[in-house]
Amino acid sequence: MIKEYVENICKKAKEAFFELAKADEKRINDVLLELAELIDKKREAIKQENLKDMKNGEQNNLSSALLDRLLLNDRRIDSMIESLQMLVSLRSPVGEVIDGWVLENALKIEKVRVPIGVVGIIYESRPNVTIDAASLCLKSSNCAVLRGGKEAVNSNRILSELIKEALRVNGLSEHCIGFIDKTDREGVLHLAKADKYIDVIVPRGGEGLIKFVSQNATVSVIKHDKGLCHTFIDKDADLDKALNIAYNAKVQRPGVCNAMETLLVHKDIAGAFLPEFYVLSKRAKVELRGCRRTLEILKDIKKATEDDWNREYLDLILSIKIVDDLEEAIEHINKYGSSHSEAIVTENYSNAEDFLNRVDASCVYVNASTRFTDGGVFGMGAEIGISTNKLHARGPVGLKELTTYKYKIRGSGQIRK
Amino acid sequence: MIKEYVENICKKAKEAFFELAKADEKRINDVLLELAELIDKKREAIKQENLKDMKNGEQNNLSSALLDRLLLNDRRIDSMIESLQMLVSLRSPVGEVIDGWVLENALKIEKVRVPIGVVGIIYESRPNVTIDAASLCLKSSNCAVLRGGKEAVNSNRILSELIKEALRVNGLSEHCIGFIDKTDREGVLHLAKADKYIDVIVPRGGEGLIKFVSQNATVSVIKHDKGLCHTFIDKDADLDKALNIAYNAKVQRPGVCNAMETLLVHKDIAGAFLPEFYVLSKRAKVELRGCRRTLEILKDIKKATEDDWNREYLDLILSIKIVDDLEEAIEHINKYGSSHSEAIVTENYSNAEDFLNRVDASCVYVNASTRFTDGGVFGMGAEIGISTNKLHARGPVGLKELTTYKYKIRGSGQIRK
Repeated sequence: MIKEYVENICKKAKEAFFELAKADEKRINDVLLELAELIDKKREAIKQENLKDMKNGEQNNLSSALLDRLLLNDRRIDSMIESLQMLVSLRSPVGEVIDGWVLENALKIEKVRVPIGVVGIIYESRPNVTIDAASLCLKSSNCAVLRGGKEAVNSNRILSELIKEALRVNGLSEHCIGFIDKTDREGVLHLAKADKYIDVIVPRGGEGLIKFVSQNATVSVIKHDKGLCHTFIDKDADLDKALNIAYNAKVQRPGVCNAMETLLVHKDIAGAFLPEFYVLSKRAKVELRGCRRTLEILKDIKKATEDDWNREYLDLILSIKIVDDLEEAIEHINKYGSSHSEAIVTENYSNAEDFLNRVDASCVYVNASTRFTDGGVFGMGAEIGISTNKLHARGPVGLKELTTYKYKIRGSGQIRK
Repeated sequence: MIKEYVENICKKAKEAFFELAKADEKRINDVLLELAELIDKKREAIKQENLKDMKNGEQNNLSSALLDRLLLNDRRIDSMIESLQMLVSLRSPVGEVIDGWVLENALKIEKVRVPIGVVGIIYESRPNVTIDAASLCLKSSNCAVLRGGKEAVNSNRILSELIKEALRVNGLSEHCIGFIDKTDREGVLHLAKADKYIDVIVPRGGEGLIKFVSQNATVSVIKHDKGLCHTFIDKDADLDKALNIAYNAKVQRPGVCNAMETLLVHKDIAGAFLPEFYVLSKRAKVELRGCRRTLEILKDIKKATEDDWNREYLDLILSIKIVDDLEEAIEHINKYGSSHSEAIVTENYSNAEDFLNRVDASCVYVNASTRFTDGGVFGMGAEIGISTNKLHARGPVGLKELTTYKYKIRGSGQIRK
């Protein structure tokens, strides 16, 4: 039965978590270095398993974008190895004293960073997530239960076997990183309901997956949800910066969550900005869809509908809306945005500050491209995803975000009166 | 329809949240002071409404404990007023710069504390929670939707009217604090599913309520769940401290979540400790239930069953287990505990540190009573509850725990290469 199968993996991961708590950072780093070596040694075998997935994918007519995500070549294998080595060089956040004080009765309170426990991670086609997720969880003294997509099942299986080997070689339980290799949706359901063993679940993938997990989970969820990002070109924008930033946010890599989906333009700058932007967009083959007022300036583009303001295209398509003022821009963003990354281009100090303060998103930019939202770019080391939650972790989820805290309280016999 | 009724209150609270973001702390403090004055002025009317609840409660045969929670007398009204004034004297956590750094490309990243949004709070009989919850949310620039218990509906209604009046008088929307005064369970369901408008839900109450909310919520939940707290008397405990601390943790106020429910005793100290503890317990009318080995020492007490290790008595009942060593104590706690508050009594340094490090709970004590877990006692100001979640907030939930963060990123035209 799939229910027992999943629950058993989760239960063993929870038991392993309490064992892992006794391991010091040196031991965990040794596991990561061992894993890097194993990946290097088993490079050919990994590519062979991956080839099976690629062939299945082609037979099942996966899109070329999906096939590209699935592929493990030497360059990508090298980058898995490098990210493991990089992780070893970082300091574990566990044990950090976040705060501390002494009460009137001399009780000493210390607020200390501790691992969360067992992290469930559900992801789709990219097999390198298996290594990223497992290594980030281990480095922060967490255990994990991984459930990758069915397209990548052969690649994931060999990678998870290497993880288990690296754990065993260093005297740790292989159950620290559980791996569900039955890829039906039902397995996701049981993982999302295993609150007895799983402390948090991180779904990474399409809207359907995220919705399914959110609706069914009894475990806490850190969503890596859609990125419906806006850039607002204010009246007082520097025209060059505006063109550069808007172009970069849309074109540099349109298929990712921090790319721009809707461009908002102040009515007083629209006449100067839009025709120039139109030329750049046309050259990059971006399909533009505009509001009524945009169409008065760019006469040959398609009309945007209500549906367009709600769409994460993940493609070379952009909706454009002309707004009366900063107020209307902020309202539009707070209504349609997904609280991911939002930008204003302006030279006006007060508008910049208002935008930073009042836009409800994890990352708010002035005069820069939304494309920077990324744990690596932010200097947080690797990341397990970008959270669109408001609770616990917001934005990039790195090592620190994989921890919680406890209060250690040291006394000398105090009782409550 | 109750669904539309609840959703409408939530929607208006969300709209009010964006308005509230424009108010400075002075304005919010004025609301809290106004509210304190109104409560003082309307003291007789409040007591009259409360009398209705008390009469209904008596007719419905509420227990004396519940009736006591329900009662609003002058002393309790004074304490509501005082807690409002105390809150005004605290600094709002909103705006605190938590972290900040500059990237190689000169992007300036600032991590800033911001309010969460709209907080849904579900509570049972105590009407003062209406004022506590509303004022903590306002002080941290959040909006709230309150849903109190049906026993207290008249008291809650007049208090929520005063809150709305205090908001209006100071030019803020009365919808900042929504109040659901239809008290059927269905209302809870719709609140827990209003993820479009509600950012987090805090259920406070019995196990049934918590379970119902956890199972049905699509909104993130901060649970104020049960407290199944242990005290472990280690081999090297100071006998006087051990007796004082165990007695205090059980007897000083048995009906609360940080009281002890199970006592663990090292086998080598059991013979010296248990007979003395038995005398104290008998005097305080505590019913003891022991494991097989405990019964060899305390011959006339009841036998504890597996069920006892899982029970939060909230009463003058205590289960006792003799364990072989620290290891067995930690295992028992991590298996049966509710991750609330756990204590060890010992003079052994390594055991104290091991216990602090390896017990998986929000508050872990050495040589002190678990009864100290409390936002007020910890010096965090008022609290909205004690979280047994691992994510976001753990332990007392005060002003800081009612915030999240955002990244403000200031650039000068940076684009991603």
